[in-house]
Amino acid sequence: MKKIYLDNAATTRPNLDAFNRSHAFAIENFYNPSATYRDGRAVLNEINLAKSRILRYFPNSKLIFTSCGTESDNTAISLFKRKNAVSTQGEHSAVFQTLENLRSKGQTVRYAKLNPDGSVNIDDFLSLIDKDTTFCSVVHVNNETGAINDINYLAKRAKEISPNLIFHSDGVQAFGKISSGYGSFVDLYSVSAHKIGGLKGVGCLIYNEKLKLSPFMFGGGQEGGLRSGTENVLGIINLSYCAENAYENLAKNLEKTQKLKNEFLSNINKELITIISSENASPYVVSLSAKGLRGEVLQHMLEDEGVIVGTGSACSSKHPHSRVIKACNYKNDILDGVLRISFSFETDLEEVLICAEKLNLCVEKLDKVMNKR
Amino acid sequence: MKKIYLDNAATTRPNLDAFNRSHAFAIENFYNPSATYRDGRAVLNEINLAKSRILRYFPNSKLIFTSCGTESDNTAISLFKRKNAVSTQGEHSAVFQTLENLRSKGQTVRYAKLNPDGSVNIDDFLSLIDKDTTFCSVVHVNNETGAINDINYLAKRAKEISPNLIFHSDGVQAFGKISSGYGSFVDLYSVSAHKIGGLKGVGCLIYNEKLKLSPFMFGGGQEGGLRSGTENVLGIINLSYCAENAYENLAKNLEKTQKLKNEFLSNINKELITIISSENASPYVVSLSAKGLRGEVLQHMLEDEGVIVGTGSACSSKHPHSRVIKACNYKNDILDGVLRISFSFETDLEEVLICAEKLNLCVEKLDKVMNKR
Repeated sequence: MKKIYLDNAATTRPNLDAFNRSHAFAIENFYNPSATYRDGRAVLNEINLAKSRILRYFPNSKLIFTSCGTESDNTAISLFKRKNAVSTQGEHSAVFQTLENLRSKGQTVRYAKLNPDGSVNIDDFLSLIDKDTTFCSVVHVNNETGAINDINYLAKRAKEISPNLIFHSDGVQAFGKISSGYGSFVDLYSVSAHKIGGLKGVGCLIYNEKLKLSPFMFGGGQEGGLRSGTENVLGIINLSYCAENAYENLAKNLEKTQKLKNEFLSNINKELITIISSENASPYVVSLSAKGLRGEVLQHMLEDEGVIVGTGSACSSKHPHSRVIKACNYKNDILDGVLRISFSFETDLEEVLICAEKLNLCVEKLDKVMNKR
Repeated sequence: MKKIYLDNAATTRPNLDAFNRSHAFAIENFYNPSATYRDGRAVLNEINLAKSRILRYFPNSKLIFTSCGTESDNTAISLFKRKNAVSTQGEHSAVFQTLENLRSKGQTVRYAKLNPDGSVNIDDFLSLIDKDTTFCSVVHVNNETGAINDINYLAKRAKEISPNLIFHSDGVQAFGKISSGYGSFVDLYSVSAHKIGGLKGVGCLIYNEKLKLSPFMFGGGQEGGLRSGTENVLGIINLSYCAENAYENLAKNLEKTQKLKNEFLSNINKELITIISSENASPYVVSLSAKGLRGEVLQHMLEDEGVIVGTGSACSSKHPHSRVIKACNYKNDILDGVLRISFSFETDLEEVLICAEKLNLCVEKLDKVMNKR
C-alpha cells in the first residue's frame, strides 16, 4: 500500500533536488564560515548568496538565519519591551506561548478575536491597539485553518493608530506558498525551512531594512552580531534552494493546489463532515470536522488505510481541543472531530481523491459505530 | 597538494560514518516528531534513543537538544536572574557576550583572572564568589589555549561558599575529548556537535537531573516544554552517533592526540615560537606565538603551503588581539603572533609533522623579511 502523506503543514517531505544541491556543505565544504582563510570565507560567501537568493523575493528587506520558525518568532517578540502588545487568538504556539510568558511576567498583551474561519477579526484587532501599543504579531496563514490574514493591511492600519509600533508576522505557513501579504508595513516575518521541503533545524527571520533588530542570542557575533552561533551551513544553503524553487513556481503551485482543495472538498461527505476552512483560505491547509466523532480516532483509522493526516487536537486530557479552533467559536462536538488535511507542492490529484474516499469511509464507519445507525 | 586541516577547534570534518547512519532522517524518516501517528512517534522515539546514547556518558543527567553551543550557553545563562554571577576571563564569546549583555542591563557579573596558560586562577575565582552568587560559568577546555579547568572541583568549592548557586560549564571543546571534569557539582554543560564530527546547527545542553531548567525559547512545547521548535532530527541523530564514537574511543584518541601534540611541539623552532598552551592542556588545542610577527600573515602563508590553522586574532582593527590570550597577560609582541593548531580524531602524525615543518619555514621566512636578517 502506497502511503499518502497529507500532513504537510506539520512538515514536508524533503525536496531531493535541493538536498542534493546543498549536500556538499555537510561533507566537503565543512569549513567554519567565521574562519579567515579562503575555504572559510568561501563558505561565508555561500551563506551570503543563500541570503540574496531568498531576499530576491523580499524587496527592501534583510534577514538572519535562525534554527527554526520558533526561534524567529522568539527573536521578533524579544523586541517587545514596554507598554502593550496586540496579537490574535489564532497565533501558533511559538508566538502565543512566547507572549504568554511575557504576560506572566507582567507585560500587557491583548489578543484579538477570530472569525469562524480562523482569520483575525479586523475590527476587534484594531480596537485593541492604542497609542501605547509598541508591538503587534499576526500570523499570515493560520496553521490550523489556512485562513489568510492581510498582514500588510493590518500593519498599515495598526500604524495609523500607533506609528512606531513594530509589526511581526509568523509567515511559516505562507512563505513560498502565498503570493500576497508581506509588504512595507510589515517589520518582521518568520520562516521555517521544513515547511517547504527544507531540513528541520533551520529557518530565518526576514525584516524591514529600516528596522533596528537586536540579538536574541549572544556570542561570536555571526550574522553581523544579530544571531550568534556557528551557522547551520547545510540547512541554510538547502533552505535557499527550497525557497527559490517555491517562489519560482508559486503561482503554478497555488493554482494546482487550489484545484486539489476544490476536488477534495467536492468529494467529501458533507452530511457528516463540516468544513472549517473558508473558500479564500490558503489551499494548502484544509480544516474540517467530523462532527460528534473523535478526530484522533479518525486519524488512526486513516493511518491504517495508508493516509496520514493531522488532527486539531493536542491529545492531552488537560487541553483536549485545539486552542485556535476553539477561538473560532465552535462547540465541543465540532472541536472533537477536527482533522487537518494539508498539501505540499508534490501532492497529486490521485492522493487527494483517495484521501477523500478513505475519509468518507472512515467517518461513515465510525459514525455507524458511535451513533448505532 | 593534499590539504592539511588543523583548525579543528573551529569545526571538524564531518564523521562520514555518523552522517551515513543518520542520513535517512533527512530523507525517508522526515516525519514531524510531534505528530501523533506511528511515523511521527517513531521519529520521536529515535530522538529519545539519541538522547540516551549521549546520556550514557553523563550519569544522573538529562539533556535538551539545541541549535548550537551558543544556544546552550544562552539557555544556561538565562537561569541567572538576580544578585551576582561569577565567571572567568577565559570564556568563549557565547558565554562572555551573553553575560556582558546582562551586565549592560545592570546585573552584576565578575570575571576571574587567568593563569598564563589560559586556565582560571582558582584563588581569584573563589575570592569573587560570595553568599549572593547565584550563578557561575567556567569553560571546561579553553577554546584558544586548550587549558583544562577542573570544573567539578571549582563547582564544589564555589558551592561551599554559596550552596544554591547554579554552576554552568561550556564543554564545547571538552565533550568527547577529555575524560575528566563533568561531575555531580556541575549543573549545566554546553555541547556542540560540529566540534566532534557532527553537523553545524545542533548541540545540546546537559544538566543535572535535580536542576529545574527553564525554557529559553517558547512555543510548541517540544523537549518537555524546555526547548520549543521542531527538532533538528538529522542533526540530533547524527550528534548522538558522533558522541558515541567519541566517547567509545576517548582514551585511545586522547593518547594518540597527546603523542601528536608532543611530536608537534618537539619539532617546532622554539627560538622563534613561544608555546602558550601548557603541558597538561587538552592535546587537541595548541596555542603558540611567533613573537613579533603577525599571526594572520603566517596563517595565509601556511594556507598557501596547504596547511590550514587558526589564529588568535579577531582580525578587526578595533580589537586586533584575542581577548582571552590578552587576559593570559601577554604583551603585544606575543599577542600579534598567535596561531592556534587544533587536532581532530582523524589527524595523523604525517600531517602534524608537515605542519611543524611548514610552520618553521614560514616563521623563519617572515622573520627574515620583517627583521631584515
